[in-house]
Amino acid sequence: MAVPATRAVRSDGIRSREAILRTAASLATVRGLEALSLGELAAEVGMSKSGMYAHFGSKEELQLATVAAAKSIFEDVVLGPASAYPPGRDGLIALADLFMEHIRRRIFPGGCFFDATFDELLSYPGPVLDAVIDVRRDFRQRFHDHLEAAATAGELPPGADLEQLEFDVMAGMSLGEDLFRAQGDGRVIDLAERAVRLRMGVPADYRPVRSR
Amino acid sequence: MAVPATRAVRSDGIRSREAILRTAASLATVRGLEALSLGELAAEVGMSKSGMYAHFGSKEELQLATVAAAKSIFEDVVLGPASAYPPGRDGLIALADLFMEHIRRRIFPGGCFFDATFDELLSYPGPVLDAVIDVRRDFRQRFHDHLEAAATAGELPPGADLEQLEFDVMAGMSLGEDLFRAQGDGRVIDLAERAVRLRMGVPADYRPVRSR
Repeated sequence: MAVPATRAVRSDGIRSREAILRTAASLATVRGLEALSLGELAAEVGMSKSGMYAHFGSKEELQLATVAAAKSIFEDVVLGPASAYPPGRDGLIALADLFMEHIRRRIFPGGCFFDATFDELLSYPGPVLDAVIDVRRDFRQRFHDHLEAAATAGELPPGADLEQLEFDVMAGMSLGEDLFRAQGDGRVIDLAERAVRLRMGVPADYRPVRSR
Repeated sequence: MAVPATRAVRSDGIRSREAILRTAASLATVRGLEALSLGELAAEVGMSKSGMYAHFGSKEELQLATVAAAKSIFEDVVLGPASAYPPGRDGLIALADLFMEHIRRRIFPGGCFFDATFDELLSYPGPVLDAVIDVRRDFRQRFHDHLEAAATAGELPPGADLEQLEFDVMAGMSLGEDLFRAQGDGRVIDLAERAVRLRMGVPADYRPVRSR
């Protein structure tokens, strides 16, 4: 009987660690990652502060684990599903749509985790900011790669300015996210999704096609 | 001799009030308008706190005066010069350019005063937030009016989606501003100015023409 008991304990430990970090990631998009304290989080999830210290030794460890948890959610909801689409125009549109839908569905209450925490962390350089920057850079790079693939595949007009296209696509997504956070009106998400299609030269109601 | 003396005193008072408010407006774009205190500002401009109280009775009075000062600067640098251009395509491009140049020149160190303070003030509803919202709404309305004038003048393709165009123009400006604040690289200002031209259907190096 010892084995199942140990398993159950470990499973509970894993589950509660995950639950704590999901709460931490959500809170961080509203109150900030730097403002997150072990005591505050303990109160939020109904645990003792000493229990929190058993999970996370320090505030920085908690912050890094929170960024990792947010990254894992972002992969599950945005990056993973987007990888079902081929590189190029359709992959770019799918990635943009999945990002905008994760904003519309308020996967994180304060918008994109990696936008919400970035501005705040600029004032606190260190490994936590670096971890956030890594995810942002990877996300941006995916758009860059999709645009290069689209150009190579002849999906863009010859001589299209890829730097300008990348800027325009990010601009629509960024304003859509900002206005949705300020106004909560899904219409701005539609405008952002249409903006991406217009820049990619497809109709406003175009649906990207999966790889197979 | 009494008259010149009185004038001199009043002139000094006006000058120093203006200087204080210019400092306050600059500080607010970096540290926030809510974080602005009479004591902190007094230290910054080298005045006594009691002298500050003689100028501004309360924190809210100081905040409202700071917004008014920022609005006056914004009118001098962006809105006023833009009014030399005709309603429609050229007026819109000139307004966007003047806005982006005021970002590039760091007229306010933290970017656009009315963007920098808006997010912060959302947590503090009241007359100060209302004053900021008024300026933002007026600015946005100018783009709306220019687009309607452009459509009426036949400067846009027939049936152009004005709501989408307005979103796209604001998106380019907004991302240009955000990236410039984060990276300080004027290249993103160029991309924003080009994005506006592309949306308005003119070449990337197009120069708007004044009314006369």
